[in-house]
Amino acid sequence: MPRDTGGDVRNGDALCSLRWNASGEAVEIIDQTLLPHTLQWRELVTLESYCHAIATMQVRGAPLIGITAAFALAQEIGRDSSSDNMQRAAVALLATRPTAVNLRWALDAVMSAVRDVEPGMRGEVALATALQLRAEDIGHCARLGEFGLQLLRELKPAGVLNIMTHCNAGWLAAVEWGTALAPVYKAHAAGIAVHVWVSETRPRNQGMNLTAWELQRAGIPCTLVADNACGQLLRRGEVDCVMVGSDRTAANGDVCNKIGTYLKALAARASEIPFYVVLPESTIDWCCASGDDIPIEERDQSELLAIRGVDSGGQTRELMLAAAGSRAYNPAFDVTPAELVTALVTEHGNFEAGPAGMERLRNQISSSTPM
Amino acid sequence: MPRDTGGDVRNGDALCSLRWNASGEAVEIIDQTLLPHTLQWRELVTLESYCHAIATMQVRGAPLIGITAAFALAQEIGRDSSSDNMQRAAVALLATRPTAVNLRWALDAVMSAVRDVEPGMRGEVALATALQLRAEDIGHCARLGEFGLQLLRELKPAGVLNIMTHCNAGWLAAVEWGTALAPVYKAHAAGIAVHVWVSETRPRNQGMNLTAWELQRAGIPCTLVADNACGQLLRRGEVDCVMVGSDRTAANGDVCNKIGTYLKALAARASEIPFYVVLPESTIDWCCASGDDIPIEERDQSELLAIRGVDSGGQTRELMLAAAGSRAYNPAFDVTPAELVTALVTEHGNFEAGPAGMERLRNQISSSTPM
Repeated sequence: MPRDTGGDVRNGDALCSLRWNASGEAVEIIDQTLLPHTLQWRELVTLESYCHAIATMQVRGAPLIGITAAFALAQEIGRDSSSDNMQRAAVALLATRPTAVNLRWALDAVMSAVRDVEPGMRGEVALATALQLRAEDIGHCARLGEFGLQLLRELKPAGVLNIMTHCNAGWLAAVEWGTALAPVYKAHAAGIAVHVWVSETRPRNQGMNLTAWELQRAGIPCTLVADNACGQLLRRGEVDCVMVGSDRTAANGDVCNKIGTYLKALAARASEIPFYVVLPESTIDWCCASGDDIPIEERDQSELLAIRGVDSGGQTRELMLAAAGSRAYNPAFDVTPAELVTALVTEHGNFEAGPAGMERLRNQISSSTPM
Repeated sequence: MPRDTGGDVRNGDALCSLRWNASGEAVEIIDQTLLPHTLQWRELVTLESYCHAIATMQVRGAPLIGITAAFALAQEIGRDSSSDNMQRAAVALLATRPTAVNLRWALDAVMSAVRDVEPGMRGEVALATALQLRAEDIGHCARLGEFGLQLLRELKPAGVLNIMTHCNAGWLAAVEWGTALAPVYKAHAAGIAVHVWVSETRPRNQGMNLTAWELQRAGIPCTLVADNACGQLLRRGEVDCVMVGSDRTAANGDVCNKIGTYLKALAARASEIPFYVVLPESTIDWCCASGDDIPIEERDQSELLAIRGVDSGGQTRELMLAAAGSRAYNPAFDVTPAELVTALVTEHGNFEAGPAGMERLRNQISSSTPM
């Protein structure tokens, strides 16, 4: 059975969102729908359990969705390595979330790895590929952190370095480190005093439920604010830079990320504050010419109209917020045009967004990819 | 006992937020903290009940806060018309909400009215003044609606007219009509097909709790969205104009309004969509040179960290959203610079924001005020 390795760039077992239980032959994930009130690990084994976990956002975040899907496909191939079954599993997994391009990227990686392998060996090769993708993701996120840290060091704040983020692009969104938060963890580890402004991120409150929780777990000071407060904070000089992730990045550098990202980019530009997008290469969709070509997932209106929390007895409950009969529109992502992005931080280095930077990035990727 | 009059410009008893019960000698208000789930009228008689109603936002909205405070002071003068008591009551009322300038404006109006009146008559004069302010507010809001309607007619949308608003600046925020929503009600009454995008307005959810409720009550189609979704809606051409109110307007035309207003203004400008601020003269603070001089009320972090709603049994409950020990920063307002405002809609007509428009507005006010 392949071993679970993360290379020499790990950030510790306590700051990890997905692990492979070799003896149980299952993936173990943190059920993120229960955070911040309950930390519960769940085993995923069947294709149905994986699809459910992705669709209901027990796992979420572009990198983590990809890695989870890779394990799902690998385990399914282990059960039945026929082409029909592989295809059926890939289609089911792809349908769970329409916007995250990592899903397709990870499934393609597993499919390619087993294509020329004899059926009896496909399961093991697929699983080895999933484990390798996991290890690579940890390595890529660590590199994102190092490249982002270079930008943070350039900001030279007078006192504490104030970073604003949106949604969750930390270790809960990847396997370890995260994307947008990787530079924050690297800065903290390097002894730089950091403070993170965490926007609530309605309607699913990933900032409040996930980002604040994972930062607290890592001992990094943070303050929650309403999404609405972020413009004012930027305007008043309370923020040194904004760092966000990307769910899909178009070939022209437009960034599709959690709904509300665009408003922060506008406010950062208005106040001349750097706006950095931190993303692994796997989120880039070179087939999307611009952000306007990216399909925007629309989620159920109940995410806005109702809410979950815990009562004074610690019991999880759901409450209706809106009047009965209310109607809501709930797009999950928005597009930030490349011209509002100060730099794209990738595992290949930092690039300006826009055509020239994307061309440089593409060339860099080509030259670093083994033929 | 003075009569309760609203002139000939009323919008009907069902769309009114504050009434004077002459026989009970009490003001009756809708307790807005119970909306949208429960419609409950409360009587206000004592100074304490008035202060509590304003501080806890049973009544809120710049115009309504002013009118409520006027009745509070009038009733207190009716009980004890000494200068000491008037002063004590005014100080207590002023302390309830620091940002809304209408509070001071309304208290000044009542104080001025009784200054040269013999003590025995002061109570009746003060109450007559409060009732007059109430009637004038209804009249002003009706005029705001007519002037705003002129701007809406100029937009000439292909189909339904899509208006985005923020927070609540409807009849729940004034006595009737409202400010930002007055043009919407006038357009609806004029047979124009309108649809309102209502932003949730975290952290207190006035869009969801109040605006959607009052629009539904008036039969006007509306759709709730997360505050985060508003940039995307504007960028995708789903909005013909944005209309918001103002809690305090500086002499240079900068607008202080509910936190999140500034982000909508930035997004409207980026997409070249008109951004209108609808405000009665009483919200203008000519002593504030710019928005930077306006004190921003910071409210308790619990407004963000916990939330109220109803459970499946219709019971109102409060839930904790954030992890225990989380910290939040909760400013209630932000400042939108005049250069982002397409026009200021006032009861004196429509004016461009910025120095020239404010000068014209000031001259217009001077020439229309009886000496």
